Amino acid sequence: MKVVALAGGVGGAKLAAGLQDALPDGDLTVVVNTADDFDLWGLRICPDLDTVMYTLADFANPVTGWGVRKESFNSLGMISVYGEDCWFKLGDKDLATHILRTNRLREGASLTEVTAGLVEALGARARILPMCDEPVATILDTQEGPMEFQVYFVRRGQKDDVRGVELRGIEDAQITESVSVALAGADLILLCPSNPIVSIWPVLAVPGMRKALEASPAPKVAVSPIIGGRALKGPADRMLSSLGHESSATGVARIYEGLIDGMVVDLVDTAERAEIEALGVRVLETEAVMRDAEDRTRLAREVLDFGAKLAGRS
Amino acid sequence: MKVVALAGGVGGAKLAAGLQDALPDGDLTVVVNTADDFDLWGLRICPDLDTVMYTLADFANPVTGWGVRKESFNSLGMISVYGEDCWFKLGDKDLATHILRTNRLREGASLTEVTAGLVEALGARARILPMCDEPVATILDTQEGPMEFQVYFVRRGQKDDVRGVELRGIEDAQITESVSVALAGADLILLCPSNPIVSIWPVLAVPGMRKALEASPAPKVAVSPIIGGRALKGPADRMLSSLGHESSATGVARIYEGLIDGMVVDLVDTAERAEIEALGVRVLETEAVMRDAEDRTRLAREVLDFGAKLAGRS
Repeated sequence: MKVVALAGGVGGAKLAAGLQDALPDGDLTVVVNTADDFDLWGLRICPDLDTVMYTLADFANPVTGWGVRKESFNSLGMISVYGEDCWFKLGDKDLATHILRTNRLREGASLTEVTAGLVEALGARARILPMCDEPVATILDTQEGPMEFQVYFVRRGQKDDVRGVELRGIEDAQITESVSVALAGADLILLCPSNPIVSIWPVLAVPGMRKALEASPAPKVAVSPIIGGRALKGPADRMLSSLGHESSATGVARIYEGLIDGMVVDLVDTAERAEIEALGVRVLETEAVMRDAEDRTRLAREVLDFGAKLAGRS
Repeated sequence: MKVVALAGGVGGAKLAAGLQDALPDGDLTVVVNTADDFDLWGLRICPDLDTVMYTLADFANPVTGWGVRKESFNSLGMISVYGEDCWFKLGDKDLATHILRTNRLREGASLTEVTAGLVEALGARARILPMCDEPVATILDTQEGPMEFQVYFVRRGQKDDVRGVELRGIEDAQITESVSVALAGADLILLCPSNPIVSIWPVLAVPGMRKALEASPAPKVAVSPIIGGRALKGPADRMLSSLGHESSATGVARIYEGLIDGMVVDLVDTAERAEIEALGVRVLETEAVMRDAEDRTRLAREVLDFGAKLAGRS
């Protein structure tokens, strides 16, 4: 079963890792948000791509979910000696990724090509595709004025109320050939349990993406990132609320209404089943919290079974 | 006494460190060879500038003479995981220098400006100036064909015979305002015990440099990098021979003939005094090997005294 998973950072990477374990090698393609990419000291940093890549290649820090495990921060310490503000925690090993990516991009390779090279070298068993090759920047509207995503997310610790989201540059982006081909060949399309506003929405907003999704006969299934009204990680719950959505599985289902055929919600959210089904979305209730590799693979298998059922395969 | 020292890498940096200790803060300006600068993975690496900077700011690795002390190589290890050939040993702390320099150059700052910022942050007590702001590349003619300097020096361990030296780009370079001003205000100009062919010659070859040196009334003193016919470090002795020079203090004096007023040679080379003096060059014989900080400062003081004597000051 060829599966395409749309993903952001840590939460999406966890499910993607489960899917990679549950599927034959090469059957999984992860299409990753790149709207929170940014430049730091001239290096192109792609936080979500890296989180997915490190996770799938088994290089990820299992405690933080982002960054490389057994990491050191000696370069950053020296950058700090040079007087720079080191609010974004770049590890020494992680820096290697940014240095090589930046160089290959400067040499003229596309982000899709560069990512493929890095992923192959690290040995992930899935394809990892950026949502597009053009730079897109998520700019948040806050009381403090417009704010770049990583400034909001890392530097200011997600303390600001988000009143609006702009995807700067999205109108000049376009779906890549690689993403188009993957979607056209997909038997199942998954929306990972990533932030619906700043992780999944940018992917869906790439010109040509929604059309390609709608053209695919594959069932589309979202896994709710909201469990019991709360995001397991990150600011998705507060962001949903401040932007006028409901911070619940139903609230997420409404955002994806018209696109998804099925939704996976946690057992604590069974009360929402009827409301979600009223949107024309089938519901799978299961234990949706991924605490370890076993959880990830089990959830992935359940999601795949659910998808196969929706496709009328079983 | 305002002193300008022309320097290459490790040997030059050692004497420069001694001069920094022997002179009041701010009285020393080191003009550094940049013809062995190169790009690696998109980063601009300036080996001699960095060696001088790290040494004067007391960040240098005392064992190797180059690189930063208490260094780690985790980033390079990851770059190697990505399949790159890691023949140039970039440490994690050292990488910080290259990342920030590359970024500031890309933002439009000159190498002179960038270097000044880095040097100030690290806290050296001397000014460190690149010989020019334009990129110049030392290309060596060998049996294996033309070879970039760092490939010869690091990758191939100086095993090739050097039959010729080209300074690619030197014709488009020019002496900087900072170097001009420093030379014009100098009471003493020193040629450090660096490789005369690939460290000092590129500095002298910068258009406008020799004219500025000749226009200065300050005595010019060279410290011989050849002691007892041998280079203490690096391939200067073999390079002198293969290029048709004599590998001796006299051979070095001949290269600098017409430019220098004095030469500092080691006690083992006292037999060469007459030959060097016949070139119109005054000779100071002393213990010229710098084993530790004490040696460096002692030699620096003797060189400064010798220079003052040549200037008729004492």
